[in-house]
Amino acid sequence: MNHAIVFQSDFGLCDGAVAAMHGVAFSEDSNLKIFDLTHEIPPYDIWEASYRLIQTVEYWPEGTVFVSVVDPGVGSHRRSIAIKTKSNRYIITPDNGTITHVKLMTGIEEVRLIQESSSHLPHSELSYTFHGRDVYAYVGARLASTHITFEEIGDLLEVDSLELLPVIAPVLEEKEIEGTIDVLDVRFGSLWTNIPYDLFKSLGVQRGEKVEVTIQNDPRFVYQNIVTFAKSFADVHAGESLVYINSLQNMAVAINQGSFANAYNIGTGTSWKIKIKKAPRMIYEN
Amino acid sequence: MNHAIVFQSDFGLCDGAVAAMHGVAFSEDSNLKIFDLTHEIPPYDIWEASYRLIQTVEYWPEGTVFVSVVDPGVGSHRRSIAIKTKSNRYIITPDNGTITHVKLMTGIEEVRLIQESSSHLPHSELSYTFHGRDVYAYVGARLASTHITFEEIGDLLEVDSLELLPVIAPVLEEKEIEGTIDVLDVRFGSLWTNIPYDLFKSLGVQRGEKVEVTIQNDPRFVYQNIVTFAKSFADVHAGESLVYINSLQNMAVAINQGSFANAYNIGTGTSWKIKIKKAPRMIYEN
Amino acid sequence: MNHAIVFQSDFGLCDGAVAAMHGVAFSEDSNLKIFDLTHEIPPYDIWEASYRLIQTVEYWPEGTVFVSVVDPGVGSHRRSIAIKTKSNRYIITPDNGTITHVKLMTGIEEVRLIQESSSHLPHSELSYTFHGRDVYAYVGARLASTHITFEEIGDLLEVDSLELLPVIAPVLEEKEIEGTIDVLDVRFGSLWTNIPYDLFKSLGVQRGEKVEVTIQNDPRFVYQNIVTFAKSFADVHAGESLVYINSLQNMAVAINQGSFANAYNIGTGTSWKIKIKKAPRMIYEN
Repeated sequence: MNHAIVFQSDFGLCDGAVAAMHGVAFSEDSNLKIFDLTHEIPPYDIWEASYRLIQTVEYWPEGTVFVSVVDPGVGSHRRSIAIKTKSNRYIITPDNGTITHVKLMTGIEEVRLIQESSSHLPHSELSYTFHGRDVYAYVGARLASTHITFEEIGDLLEVDSLELLPVIAPVLEEKEIEGTIDVLDVRFGSLWTNIPYDLFKSLGVQRGEKVEVTIQNDPRFVYQNIVTFAKSFADVHAGESLVYINSLQNMAVAINQGSFANAYNIGTGTSWKIKIKKAPRMIYEN
Repeated sequence: MNHAIVFQSDFGLCDGAVAAMHGVAFSEDSNLKIFDLTHEIPPYDIWEASYRLIQTVEYWPEGTVFVSVVDPGVGSHRRSIAIKTKSNRYIITPDNGTITHVKLMTGIEEVRLIQESSSHLPHSELSYTFHGRDVYAYVGARLASTHITFEEIGDLLEVDSLELLPVIAPVLEEKEIEGTIDVLDVRFGSLWTNIPYDLFKSLGVQRGEKVEVTIQNDPRFVYQNIVTFAKSFADVHAGESLVYINSLQNMAVAINQGSFANAYNIGTGTSWKIKIKKAPRMIYEN
Repeated sequence: MNHAIVFQSDFGLCDGAVAAMHGVAFSEDSNLKIFDLTHEIPPYDIWEASYRLIQTVEYWPEGTVFVSVVDPGVGSHRRSIAIKTKSNRYIITPDNGTITHVKLMTGIEEVRLIQESSSHLPHSELSYTFHGRDVYAYVGARLASTHITFEEIGDLLEVDSLELLPVIAPVLEEKEIEGTIDVLDVRFGSLWTNIPYDLFKSLGVQRGEKVEVTIQNDPRFVYQNIVTFAKSFADVHAGESLVYINSLQNMAVAINQGSFANAYNIGTGTSWKIKIKKAPRMIYEN
């Protein structure tokens, strides 16, 4: 453990909910280093919570404890869990699919069941709806401060028993890759696909060459055009589209200094299909 | 003192105002632990500033210093004060009603007058409009770092001399409770009332039973319906309304995975009355 | 060095980009004190990035390291630089004009060229578009933690070789000052001009007296009216306009408890001219 605790939620920053979690953690141990991943996960959006974890967890050192509270089923019989990743980071979260990407990409070493009846802030028994503060922040802080060990959190669970969100793998077929649009780079309107660069390589497209990008949201054709596979935004004109490798080593689509998502009203999720293939060579007649 | 300082304001996070306050605190003592409550208090909304303090202060350990800067009267003759709560937390704030809920619910042990003429950042004399940075952050950091004691901040004031916002107490009459809608859980659109669970209990309603909720904003009837008193959101269907106990142990009204406030255009303040009574038992004819 | 690192970007707080930078810094040295200036710089707005630095840098102690990532030219041949200000703070940033106001107002002591080929997070070679995380956060953290010295960052550059944004100096002519509207106090809608109080003084206007304010966005007259030069907002009525001295000791224009920018649709930049002169004395007839 390194005494760092990193919070994520869909609580927003407008009220005191995040500060109450911070206070609970700081009360447990004033030497904790308290950070935030984001609290702007869209309400109840477990998919995005899962994605933001895989986007960041590996950039923090081993032993870091993440507390993620996106919990549409709070108060139901969904379990509360603590996981240890194969890369030795910890995540405290409801068992509702939040660990989907981490399980697939990093791998999970061990899972423990949080006994909510015993693992909550003293005197917080009544507050059924505030598990973020009273259970998750509390357990996360006790783990990060080494006041309890990972094993002391609760009984061992089978990794295979965890809830997972449906994920569709990208497919390479006849020199065309089909994948899905996983998430937006919200601020800049770029599309982040589930197509890894390693798979894209098999198309044999070099940087500076063109690909044909097709986007469908069944049954609607949303976009089809020829786009440059660029090393970075600066390799295309302002306002020009590009395909590039994002910070997760996946393929992404953007407009340099514009918003691709806004320009073509693109959404995310498994119904949003994207196909990429090497573009036919264009011969310009004289 | 525990060297923790927690900032609240209506400054937003878009410019450098909050970072300047953090810098002033860090310059006073680089061992301070610097946190934020929220900076998204709606501009000049003292009521909400007061409410967010009561929502969070007790979750931080004794000795924590809060600096709250929502200050529509900055530069006027309103006083600047430092208070010590009965629970041994400190709040640095303009004397404009920001301490209303803390005074009523936690109680104030002692108040000191901040001498603005002597208690400001060196070389900041000209900046009449930036007391947040030059006076409140500065005094808060000096207190949190123990560079000054609470007593050294300034003269003792009478607790009864403090400005208070008007607060209406909930009333129980003929098995119906009338209260007000104090504040929204902004992100999820829930209504937080001023009706404590302890008072609600006298209605004799068990979890899972129904209550009749009436909301008025004189002279308009805004809402009247039969709603389940639920242990938590998961006890009702998605889209169904519920009454529940919020994190302050007060009664709240929500739509599971929807926004009650948006659905019925509900506002907050003392003109927004809410009545709750046990629902008549419904007999369904065959 | 004081082990403090302060981040600024146009990344927003909705995804994991900021948390990844924090994680990179914390991984370099878990004793770093990690802060944020703002991450809500409008996308690609170098001018505002430059302005927010001058608004805050001096409020942090000597030795503080700022990392500012607003980088429309990422991946191009724009240089990456580390500067030391004459006041002994450090800024890590693309060489695209972000240091304009700091150079003009504080002065730059020394500039070093960041060798991107050697100064990046190990194993991050592919990620051309994420220099914020892989180069700037990494180099900033290595400097703040004293794992490298300023000199070890890279070769010395000429201060005069740095990119600068065009800045127009305010002009005093026949008892009227003409300046530009540099930036908005976003939250409150106030206009921050480039006219220093020191220059304004030469108009001989005392607090409580009137000035005539004219705003033009060529060729359009946007606003012309008589406004009070007030000590602070509380000196005018709610809803009344005022001219005041802002936290940078420049002249600003606001509506008390309203938004001047929204009221008159005011923008910012060098095309937005503002003129201020002493108002003619008004005689009210009986």
